[in-house]
Amino acid sequence: MPTKKASATGSARRSPATANRAANQRADAQRNRAKILAATVTAIRKNPDASVADIAAEAGVGRVTLYGHFQTRAELIEAALVDSLERGEDVLREVPLDGDAREAFGRLVASSWVLVDQSRALLAAAQKELPAARIREMHEKAEARMRGLLLRGQREGAFRADLPVSWLLTTTHVVMNGAAEEVRTGRIDPDDAPWFIDAILLPAFTQTGPDEGTR
Amino acid sequence: MPTKKASATGSARRSPATANRAANQRADAQRNRAKILAATVTAIRKNPDASVADIAAEAGVGRVTLYGHFQTRAELIEAALVDSLERGEDVLREVPLDGDAREAFGRLVASSWVLVDQSRALLAAAQKELPAARIREMHEKAEARMRGLLLRGQREGAFRADLPVSWLLTTTHVVMNGAAEEVRTGRIDPDDAPWFIDAILLPAFTQTGPDEGTR
Repeated sequence: MPTKKASATGSARRSPATANRAANQRADAQRNRAKILAATVTAIRKNPDASVADIAAEAGVGRVTLYGHFQTRAELIEAALVDSLERGEDVLREVPLDGDAREAFGRLVASSWVLVDQSRALLAAAQKELPAARIREMHEKAEARMRGLLLRGQREGAFRADLPVSWLLTTTHVVMNGAAEEVRTGRIDPDDAPWFIDAILLPAFTQTGPDEGTR
Repeated sequence: MPTKKASATGSARRSPATANRAANQRADAQRNRAKILAATVTAIRKNPDASVADIAAEAGVGRVTLYGHFQTRAELIEAALVDSLERGEDVLREVPLDGDAREAFGRLVASSWVLVDQSRALLAAAQKELPAARIREMHEKAEARMRGLLLRGQREGAFRADLPVSWLLTTTHVVMNGAAEEVRTGRIDPDDAPWFIDAILLPAFTQTGPDEGTR
């Protein structure tokens, strides 16, 4: 019977000493994994084309250890980005989204910008290494939060409703990435970037064109 | 003397037959080069990760012939993009840029969009293969034309002057690329894309905010 078979293969009995050794090994592996992910961010920031060997050197682990965790550079970049997005979620979760939708949008863009700015080297490496769809999927939580706010703004008349929310989202996304590129090339100061982003997105999304008057 | 030395190394005498053979070889090489570049566009459109071998197969030439022209995939992608941008220039050169700056901007965006849409697979491959700075440099002529128009619009009060023209340019660029991505994923119909692009850029660049009234 299936249940019996599963229980037979699933639980081999272990002595306490073996269990301890296994727990220590798991803890070591977790520490190494965290060390490698942090080193990935640093190495990619120093050199966007940093190789797996460069990253292993930055982490102070051997290549064999690194390959034990991540089999390809793409896998490594992806894991580092997932990790950085999870930390980002801790920040974004705290942004107050109630009240005036335009002001809430400004707050969310400002907080998101800090994260984009911190991880832009990693994101650029990910864009070279991973399919665009996968990167979008990884941003799902952040995107859902932004989408919810834009939808509420559309319902309340704060944002124009003649454009699908998906296009407003994509525009937000590309304008933030465009600002990151401007910062990278020194054309925009990182502290000014939220202002530059708002200066484009707010008029674009509120569309207070000459033919609209007061609404 | 320098002149003598140059003339001595520069011109070895050739018989007419040798010269003809050389001319034929050059013509063959040019035909092969053109065939390879056209095949690159087709192969990349079919599969964004098409290899050099795939492209050689698409062109109907051997890999050795291909490597005789382009030593790496990056070199090949770059040459195909340069070629496609040169054809694009033939189109953009004809767009009338005089008269109302906003209307001229709309015309230029619409024509540019057609080119972006045609070459988006190639551009996406280039973004993975080449440095962002190199891609921007390749777009220099198109960018200079757009920049000139935006500057005139700023001078004439058609476009807001509180943002540097470089940020307006980058915004134009990323919003067009964002639309290309939406078309690729099926969220926007390619025929509607110019409207979606204008719907963002015109209010963003004219900033007819509630505090401005008539100007």
